[in-house]
Amino acid sequence: MSTQQKHNFGAGPCILPISVMEKAASSVINWDGSGLSILEVSHRSAEFEEVVAKTQLLVRELLSVPEDYEVLFLQGGASTQFSMVPQNLLQASGNKKGAYLDTGYFAQKAIEQARHFGEVQIVASSREKGYNYIPDNYSLHHDAAYLHLTSNNTIEGTEIFEFRNFGVPLVCDMSSDIFSREIKVSDFDLIYAGAQKNMGPAGMTLVIIKKTLLTKIKYPLPAMYDYRTYAANNSMYNTPPVFSIYVSMLNLLWLKDQGGVSAIEKQNIKKAELLYEAIDKSEIFYGTADGGHRSRMNVTFQCRDKKHENGFLNYAQERGIVGTKGYRSVGGFRASLYNALPLFSVEFLVKTMAYYEKMQEMKNANQSQKIGA
Amino acid sequence: MSTQQKHNFGAGPCILPISVMEKAASSVINWDGSGLSILEVSHRSAEFEEVVAKTQLLVRELLSVPEDYEVLFLQGGASTQFSMVPQNLLQASGNKKGAYLDTGYFAQKAIEQARHFGEVQIVASSREKGYNYIPDNYSLHHDAAYLHLTSNNTIEGTEIFEFRNFGVPLVCDMSSDIFSREIKVSDFDLIYAGAQKNMGPAGMTLVIIKKTLLTKIKYPLPAMYDYRTYAANNSMYNTPPVFSIYVSMLNLLWLKDQGGVSAIEKQNIKKAELLYEAIDKSEIFYGTADGGHRSRMNVTFQCRDKKHENGFLNYAQERGIVGTKGYRSVGGFRASLYNALPLFSVEFLVKTMAYYEKMQEMKNANQSQKIGA
Repeated sequence: MSTQQKHNFGAGPCILPISVMEKAASSVINWDGSGLSILEVSHRSAEFEEVVAKTQLLVRELLSVPEDYEVLFLQGGASTQFSMVPQNLLQASGNKKGAYLDTGYFAQKAIEQARHFGEVQIVASSREKGYNYIPDNYSLHHDAAYLHLTSNNTIEGTEIFEFRNFGVPLVCDMSSDIFSREIKVSDFDLIYAGAQKNMGPAGMTLVIIKKTLLTKIKYPLPAMYDYRTYAANNSMYNTPPVFSIYVSMLNLLWLKDQGGVSAIEKQNIKKAELLYEAIDKSEIFYGTADGGHRSRMNVTFQCRDKKHENGFLNYAQERGIVGTKGYRSVGGFRASLYNALPLFSVEFLVKTMAYYEKMQEMKNANQSQKIGA
Repeated sequence: MSTQQKHNFGAGPCILPISVMEKAASSVINWDGSGLSILEVSHRSAEFEEVVAKTQLLVRELLSVPEDYEVLFLQGGASTQFSMVPQNLLQASGNKKGAYLDTGYFAQKAIEQARHFGEVQIVASSREKGYNYIPDNYSLHHDAAYLHLTSNNTIEGTEIFEFRNFGVPLVCDMSSDIFSREIKVSDFDLIYAGAQKNMGPAGMTLVIIKKTLLTKIKYPLPAMYDYRTYAANNSMYNTPPVFSIYVSMLNLLWLKDQGGVSAIEKQNIKKAELLYEAIDKSEIFYGTADGGHRSRMNVTFQCRDKKHENGFLNYAQERGIVGTKGYRSVGGFRASLYNALPLFSVEFLVKTMAYYEKMQEMKNANQSQKIGA
């Protein structure tokens, strides 16, 4: 039996490479000949400590993380970071404000949580246009503790391609595009990401934080909400999500074998271009995100005539395409093109869209003939 | 290849049944013939929602959880609960105090974290005796918001067998003995447990909370730190730890097949008695926990002559016994006898202890002969 018998366009948890699944499965039975399952090894064993060290090193290598940044593994997903960021950085900042760019559903969630810890300034929002673009005409109050961005908006299908420097710490939720393209880590002071897109299985969170930022936290925080706890204990203050870290290591090794982030970025551009091109020339479908801000990871589109919505979803599903239904609050379609999704899956989706369109044309032609007859 | 080529006495993450490992591995490749890996399915899919529902139901069945309790799945381990408990129950209680029974390393950790959220009263402590017993001669101030207990002390090898009613909410960390013995859930108002002992793999936390307790939280809390978020969203406010929940379901199904908690408790008593008996009749080893409070899950013992410490650890390891080294702050030995550890592993350990002792006797006899000669 093999995975990827389906074309999985799911938004996350998402497709991982077949070779990663196979190695993960074999390690659940017997991990590297140890006679133990990866699920039953002690997180304090030398062998697992090596897994953590290797995973950290792979993150550093693949993203060229500078030495003065910590690479941390947490639990609780990006949603927990929506609290931890202001708890660590805003609450301690005196009377400063947390500046947020409101680019969608998850940016909103981050804003909501920040209000628990201090005052929030929304520097700009694309809400009035259904979040179909990234606002870039904004400035910051001089009293911003940090600026928070969402680099890729999974639900709305937009992505930030340029990061401006405002002279305040830059915090970025990169849950759905980390490892998909080259970034300059030194442009940011704190990057966080739920693992379940391009890193590994659900259940772990990556945090990359500038060491000087840690020293600014002067007051005591509950241990598990405090970045310093993870930095001081090599992300092993308590039992970490062993399996998620292990599979992330396998997946990052796979990425390195593919040529790293720059190589996968080329692939990702190719996949996204192919799909956007198909959408743009279609008579049935249209893209929802603004040209310059279209996400390469989550391609959102709709159909001009709502009757095709279920029609196409069913047709695609019959052909082994899964996960293309748009987010419940948005509707339409969303095809996620994460690193592990092969080009041939995108080609297959594009063909399926063309077939469907052809079918509709023939149906319409038949009906016209009947009416004509 | 099969798991359990080793006798795994590790304290957690720990041994799980072979059949669970095998099914988990096969689902990493192709989950129930879906053509998808369990690692790449959407947590919003009907199929995974069924996994969550089934896991909740199994918890309810196995522990006879009354209807007026919520069964929640969180992340962050018991260590996160050390904060969430006082954050939800103490901070809102007016000027009440969090009452804690100090029975060991993890009780201490819980106490430390509670101090972030309010005043703490330590009702009794066995610290002065190295936590080798459970204090039971104590009373509560009338202004206690709750009493917090650690039912099983993983590091010190003690366990609470009687739960008294003080007329205040009873909160219990059951990380290392939940599902190992029958409990009356209605004796407690909040039970929490890191999954990685008798429930499933590391990366999820079980919380069982009385619904009336939730209504007492009147003030806003950050979403991910608020029990109400998990209750209102069926533990799926954000992406849950999919694989850990899935394997927990498999493991609880296994437990049900074994005859449930009452049946496994009999097995666990048998295993513990066998090992304690061997320790008590040994000339080399001695148990560290007080008679009436000896844990059935974590058997802690030492050797009278320290020279045997490494000697026995090496000898045991050569025979395929792993995980018997005592916690770093305690030293000596700890054999954890969780649900999935078969009786024959305990028999094998007991035999190994006897062989080792015999070997030492022969060595001594040889030396005496030489001296005599």
